[in-house]
Amino acid sequence: MNFTSDNSFGAAPEIIEAMARANEGALGSYGADPLAARVEERLREIFETDLRVFLVTTGTAANALALASVSPPWGTVFCHAEAHIAEDECGAPEFFGGGLTLRHLPGKDAKIGQEALAHAITECGARGVHQTQPAALSLTNLTEKGALYTPDEIAALADIAHAGRCAVHLDGTRFANAVVASGETPADLSWRSGVDILCLGATKNGALAAEAVIFFDPQRQEAAISSFAFRRKRGGHLVSKGRLLSAQMDAWLEGEFWLNRAAHSNAMGQRLATGLRAIGGVGITNDAAANILFVTLPLAIHRRLRAAGAAYYLEPASQSEEGDGVSVRARLVCSPSTPPESVDSFVGLCAENGAAPA
Amino acid sequence: MNFTSDNSFGAAPEIIEAMARANEGALGSYGADPLAARVEERLREIFETDLRVFLVTTGTAANALALASVSPPWGTVFCHAEAHIAEDECGAPEFFGGGLTLRHLPGKDAKIGQEALAHAITECGARGVHQTQPAALSLTNLTEKGALYTPDEIAALADIAHAGRCAVHLDGTRFANAVVASGETPADLSWRSGVDILCLGATKNGALAAEAVIFFDPQRQEAAISSFAFRRKRGGHLVSKGRLLSAQMDAWLEGEFWLNRAAHSNAMGQRLATGLRAIGGVGITNDAAANILFVTLPLAIHRRLRAAGAAYYLEPASQSEEGDGVSVRARLVCSPSTPPESVDSFVGLCAENGAAPA
Amino acid sequence: MNFTSDNSFGAAPEIIEAMARANEGALGSYGADPLAARVEERLREIFETDLRVFLVTTGTAANALALASVSPPWGTVFCHAEAHIAEDECGAPEFFGGGLTLRHLPGKDAKIGQEALAHAITECGARGVHQTQPAALSLTNLTEKGALYTPDEIAALADIAHAGRCAVHLDGTRFANAVVASGETPADLSWRSGVDILCLGATKNGALAAEAVIFFDPQRQEAAISSFAFRRKRGGHLVSKGRLLSAQMDAWLEGEFWLNRAAHSNAMGQRLATGLRAIGGVGITNDAAANILFVTLPLAIHRRLRAAGAAYYLEPASQSEEGDGVSVRARLVCSPSTPPESVDSFVGLCAENGAAPA
Amino acid sequence: MNFTSDNSFGAAPEIIEAMARANEGALGSYGADPLAARVEERLREIFETDLRVFLVTTGTAANALALASVSPPWGTVFCHAEAHIAEDECGAPEFFGGGLTLRHLPGKDAKIGQEALAHAITECGARGVHQTQPAALSLTNLTEKGALYTPDEIAALADIAHAGRCAVHLDGTRFANAVVASGETPADLSWRSGVDILCLGATKNGALAAEAVIFFDPQRQEAAISSFAFRRKRGGHLVSKGRLLSAQMDAWLEGEFWLNRAAHSNAMGQRLATGLRAIGGVGITNDAAANILFVTLPLAIHRRLRAAGAAYYLEPASQSEEGDGVSVRARLVCSPSTPPESVDSFVGLCAENGAAPA
Repeated sequence: MNFTSDNSFGAAPEIIEAMARANEGALGSYGADPLAARVEERLREIFETDLRVFLVTTGTAANALALASVSPPWGTVFCHAEAHIAEDECGAPEFFGGGLTLRHLPGKDAKIGQEALAHAITECGARGVHQTQPAALSLTNLTEKGALYTPDEIAALADIAHAGRCAVHLDGTRFANAVVASGETPADLSWRSGVDILCLGATKNGALAAEAVIFFDPQRQEAAISSFAFRRKRGGHLVSKGRLLSAQMDAWLEGEFWLNRAAHSNAMGQRLATGLRAIGGVGITNDAAANILFVTLPLAIHRRLRAAGAAYYLEPASQSEEGDGVSVRARLVCSPSTPPESVDSFVGLCAENGAAPA
Repeated sequence: MNFTSDNSFGAAPEIIEAMARANEGALGSYGADPLAARVEERLREIFETDLRVFLVTTGTAANALALASVSPPWGTVFCHAEAHIAEDECGAPEFFGGGLTLRHLPGKDAKIGQEALAHAITECGARGVHQTQPAALSLTNLTEKGALYTPDEIAALADIAHAGRCAVHLDGTRFANAVVASGETPADLSWRSGVDILCLGATKNGALAAEAVIFFDPQRQEAAISSFAFRRKRGGHLVSKGRLLSAQMDAWLEGEFWLNRAAHSNAMGQRLATGLRAIGGVGITNDAAANILFVTLPLAIHRRLRAAGAAYYLEPASQSEEGDGVSVRARLVCSPSTPPESVDSFVGLCAENGAAPA
Repeated sequence: MNFTSDNSFGAAPEIIEAMARANEGALGSYGADPLAARVEERLREIFETDLRVFLVTTGTAANALALASVSPPWGTVFCHAEAHIAEDECGAPEFFGGGLTLRHLPGKDAKIGQEALAHAITECGARGVHQTQPAALSLTNLTEKGALYTPDEIAALADIAHAGRCAVHLDGTRFANAVVASGETPADLSWRSGVDILCLGATKNGALAAEAVIFFDPQRQEAAISSFAFRRKRGGHLVSKGRLLSAQMDAWLEGEFWLNRAAHSNAMGQRLATGLRAIGGVGITNDAAANILFVTLPLAIHRRLRAAGAAYYLEPASQSEEGDGVSVRARLVCSPSTPPESVDSFVGLCAENGAAPA
Repeated sequence: MNFTSDNSFGAAPEIIEAMARANEGALGSYGADPLAARVEERLREIFETDLRVFLVTTGTAANALALASVSPPWGTVFCHAEAHIAEDECGAPEFFGGGLTLRHLPGKDAKIGQEALAHAITECGARGVHQTQPAALSLTNLTEKGALYTPDEIAALADIAHAGRCAVHLDGTRFANAVVASGETPADLSWRSGVDILCLGATKNGALAAEAVIFFDPQRQEAAISSFAFRRKRGGHLVSKGRLLSAQMDAWLEGEFWLNRAAHSNAMGQRLATGLRAIGGVGITNDAAANILFVTLPLAIHRRLRAAGAAYYLEPASQSEEGDGVSVRARLVCSPSTPPESVDSFVGLCAENGAAPA
């Protein structure tokens, strides 16, 4: 019963096998291997458009390098206050971006509202050199709080961003989950809705450590792409044996593998949601569109779960195991490796007699 | 009738004369002149304690260098969302601080509330290396919105900051106004209330371009002081003919000169407030403790003022001259050079018949 | 006949198998897995001392993060002009180090001479804040030009460095080759000779992508270690599924595996050297102590090798395939995967009749 | 007898008077004053071309901001190993440039040779993303070692730089001295010879603290100019009371004032050179084209000068007052304030009986 993160499990066996296969023989180093070319070709197919891709090992590197490539040091990146780049990357965007600034925006379930964005962009930089200037909008889909942007929502935000001279970045660490949950195509959830750069994450969805930074419309983005290439090397993110990354990504994107993995995570998330909704005292506080639930657990239930070995994080991180003395707030994440039995056991423990606190 | 800024006027004649006097002969360069030593001595007197001082030409440099000296690149600086460092320095703290992060806090009239600070510090960095860490609290007194912190308020915030391993920085671009308006001593408004570093601004109060960065308790702050010295040079802020700065600061601090200047600004501000309070339709929206007023002006009055040549900025900067069609919001700043006649003319124009919009 | 780099081949099968084994089950993420702890313990054994280790994926990240942790932005890092950090990392040390400065030193075969170092340190920073200050000495062993530092040589340089308030960093991307070639212990080639931080590279010697940054005497280096931890995350180098790295390093350090791999590379290098020394017209220009040779190849031999498919880089990188019209300068690197037959074929091609230019 | 630096004296009285005059009344702040516009117009006259100018207080800020505006963080700036940016700015170019790299070139009297530059640019960046890329050539005229580049020499270097995709920056801290010493026009010594950005220094030549960063061909350099504007503010170098700078520069550029000042410094330098050449044992080691001499002084003479109160710096900075026990190497700088009597006294002391060491 491990619901801590989609990072807690290893990679899919298929990914490990692909890495082993790719290990044979002498190949071009630093990304000049045939698998890397194949990955780029495959992504063009999946996204139905021309694009340029760079592979890196972590989501933090992917996001920060991408943003640094489209923002000057005096640029402002608009993001949700609970975005991964704002809360979980120890200032990586600021570091890679030479001291760029994140502007935190509000919104339910880590989704940015159009009005808030429009207002923030209008205010930003109005006093010229005295202020940092609008540079990028960073969205996350699936959001950090488990919610989903539709293509229309993305397009509306992207239009505001582009009108304000901002590039549109999408943190897609759980993009596969978003594709599956929405039933939309990868293209509709990205460039067709105005996304300029997508960080497509495989690590949380079957890979060991592989993220693809995708620049759409590469001719228009030539300067950003060149910048990215130098920043990646300079940031220590150009691995010498490039097959480490290309083999993972190649296997992950083969056929429907990547989507099937996400489909399982999402199904487990929905199974968990359905189960918990039936239990008095347990509340689901987010719009749990895919594999992430935020819940309120009565203290008695929480203690019983912990006693049975259930693993999950409390929210916020500074919350104690006693919460407010009545209940705790918890994040529950289902991964491609989560077995249905785990979900059922968890729900079962919640449902036992005496669950509700006195 | 210029109420745009305390920057719009030149320096006090006394300051220019002092610069002319100091210009004679060969002196040590790069701060090794006798006036610089005298300034440090004088500041020890004024603040009744040991300290170490560095002079620079701009408030932006003073603040950014000071914060960079006490925060690692992965540090968080807590400040008000409307602080000068957040809104008017084009990301200078982030630049000098190697990509440090500002955390914006709310509060009426740009004053940070104790609860908001305590909460923000507790949340910050709770997930270890995944998050930037508490590094500094930055206050401004007089605040950007014209309000005043009392020594007790500063001490309460400083206690929270220190308990959270934060240094306390005070942007004192209008510190003289705060001293005069509060009736407190410089010591009580700074180190005795827990301030570690004070950026004491003379530029807005009579100097041409001179700011003093003061480190209290210099033995304890030895590392920050050494860091500051290198950062100042490396930032291009160590002027070769150091007397440029030391002569200004020496003259400004002589006797009660610096306080007398602020007393005049404050008196003009209060005269303006008193005048405007008597006028129907004009509203003062801030706690105008010294020389800065934020007001709502009916459109008819605003047009009449503009027609008469009155100069002031609208708030926010992106607001049009028509405001919301009914009124505009304006910032009115009185300077050491503001004559009472200007104030009275301004009030007179506001008060004319027909002032109130239909 | 691939002598381009020790990066051109995949990982050792043992490493891939270890990664597959480590892939099972849910483990702590971000380095909190049991293998990571075991790696640290094993390194303590190998180096016969207490230490603290961080794993990263690339040598560039290892070096740059290490140097940034011991140098302020106004620090100078002394290194050989042909060091990897100076020539092959696209300014990564400057980037991670907030704009630190590398000072290039001369010396045969990329070895720094004691006198050159002593002189450079003495000159550096003599004018106080006007100049960057001595911060670190960076050595490489085996050097980029294939030569070896003895423990005595390292100790002499480290003494000079420490006397000049510099930390001593060792780029050990080929440290295993140095241990084998010298017959010295890992301890004698590192901390016993004054090395403070060792970047121990496994990638060029059997791993897929794994480098260990080792801080010796961890209590003394507590500040640098804490700085490293934040910089690693902020640099996007803290991989979520930490087992990716710990599994590689654990397998690589098991028994004599790491040394056996280097022993093979070195043996191939010496076999190549012996073969080439017997051939007229071919000159070995470096002190080829292990697996790297720099050679002058007559043009006729070079063409014959190329025609037969031999792969190697010309030096400098900007040299054309025609060299100076008479000969080319080439770098030949033997890897753990280089078969003796490759070496013998290469030598055989060189030795054919007509090899020597007219 | 102060020959330490052209910084040791205050400003010319004319400059102080101009500052006092400009101090009257309310003016636009942050560079929006009429004097700033007049300075730009005057510079167009002097340089006989269109240009865009920014004023800052220090040469370090001028150089570092200029270089950062034309180099990416992964750029290499080619400069002489003894250039001010390499030796006296504490890494300011690296700081402002986000970790850019300086490549030190050799050459007599701090003049860069064409062959050395051509070679360095060709080698630089040949391995693509693994290396920093050519970005700018930085020259200094008058050089730090007192020598002069002719327009032809500048043009030859600029041609090499431009062919290698480098912008050409000229550190003109003593540009006035170069104009006077060469008899060439400001235009011929700058843009007509290929200079893209000139940092024109007034501080060492009569101003208190004023440097003009001049972008020639402003339409072509639009991106660099915009970058500069933000970097200046963000670097804390946009002074609020801009008249501080514009008044100095305006007065300095009026008529022939700036050139007359330099003419005096140069004449004093030549008077000193003529005097010393006649003295046995004293050697002038540089090509002293203007106001800077590097000399070897026998120890007896050096002691006699010191005893008489002569002030000058020894070279290198780390040299002791005893030099090598036989002689010391000294730098002698004449300033606009150096009286002929000082020169004559200095020469006289050197010439006294017993001057030559035993």
